[in-house]
Amino acid sequence: MATQVVPKLETKAALIKAGLELMLTKGYSNTGIQEVLNVSNVPKGSFYHYFGSKEEFAVAIIHFFDQSYTADLQQILSNRKRSPIERLHDYVEHSKAKLVEEGCSKGCLIGNLSQEMADQSEVLRKELCLVMNKWRDLIAECIEEGQKIKEIDSGTSPHKLAEFFSAAWSGAVMRAKTVKNSESLDTFIELIFNNVLI
Amino acid sequence: MATQVVPKLETKAALIKAGLELMLTKGYSNTGIQEVLNVSNVPKGSFYHYFGSKEEFAVAIIHFFDQSYTADLQQILSNRKRSPIERLHDYVEHSKAKLVEEGCSKGCLIGNLSQEMADQSEVLRKELCLVMNKWRDLIAECIEEGQKIKEIDSGTSPHKLAEFFSAAWSGAVMRAKTVKNSESLDTFIELIFNNVLI
Repeated sequence: MATQVVPKLETKAALIKAGLELMLTKGYSNTGIQEVLNVSNVPKGSFYHYFGSKEEFAVAIIHFFDQSYTADLQQILSNRKRSPIERLHDYVEHSKAKLVEEGCSKGCLIGNLSQEMADQSEVLRKELCLVMNKWRDLIAECIEEGQKIKEIDSGTSPHKLAEFFSAAWSGAVMRAKTVKNSESLDTFIELIFNNVLI
Repeated sequence: MATQVVPKLETKAALIKAGLELMLTKGYSNTGIQEVLNVSNVPKGSFYHYFGSKEEFAVAIIHFFDQSYTADLQQILSNRKRSPIERLHDYVEHSKAKLVEEGCSKGCLIGNLSQEMADQSEVLRKELCLVMNKWRDLIAECIEEGQKIKEIDSGTSPHKLAEFFSAAWSGAVMRAKTVKNSESLDTFIELIFNNVLI
């Protein structure tokens, strides 16, 4: 009987997807390579064929998560049928819906790994920074567009408003994950649009 | 030669202090009991005399951290020589100074453990919730006082403003810890006082 040959890319993707799910729920330290192998049904040798270490594996997971998240974010923030402030609103409502659907668990991989690993791994810290700053800059672009059409208050720079927006949203997600309800997200949405951006 | 007798409370306190330092830097999962014993120079038997498990140990660490943090927070927020908004300002400047002094590392134990453990331990999650909500309520009291003397905008309830304040500050601390500079903290301070509370 012929053994099923799993194409290389599929194996790598299966490892990354299993790793992402485990790291989102359990964090970096609590995620064991053996568990990733069990879930993805991949032999140990294959893991080390693709990834030199657990840290390198986490970098691949961050890149994968970033690609998917950034694609969503860019799609929402470039929707010309909506005004800049409506797009920002769509983004947080979309994120909130996903979080609530998951019972306010998991949260954001970038936030989770930042809290856990920023002082533990310089390699991961730098990757997390890049992603955080990229998302903030996408939000800043949308805010700048809103300021140009006088929809968003121009008293503060788009960069600062986006930094505040991103930090406050991350904190609200963290609180929702801890308290297990969406109060902090609802409060963020109410105040950021009524008191900060307008 | 008589063996030195270490009083019981001192041993327990030494374990908690060593555990706090390690968990602040490395998180819960990465902190091994053996490392706590090595740092505090306490034999293994003593650990299990005081704490039934690592989880129970973490609860004791949360209580210890909370006591110390709450004492600081209450002292700053009840300083009658300063107006309510000046007190809130003092609180974040005090927290920022501590964070910057540590090279923007460690961050807040409650935030760190929330991200790492909210989906892993119901016992820790509930403890973290209690602490988060207590701190938020202390901030809400100060905001209410500010609203009564018309120093803070009354368009939003003290509870909601405090929820937003706390979440946004937690997020700013997380970003500072990741980026390793105080930009997010400075932005929080500028915007929360200029655009949100006033």
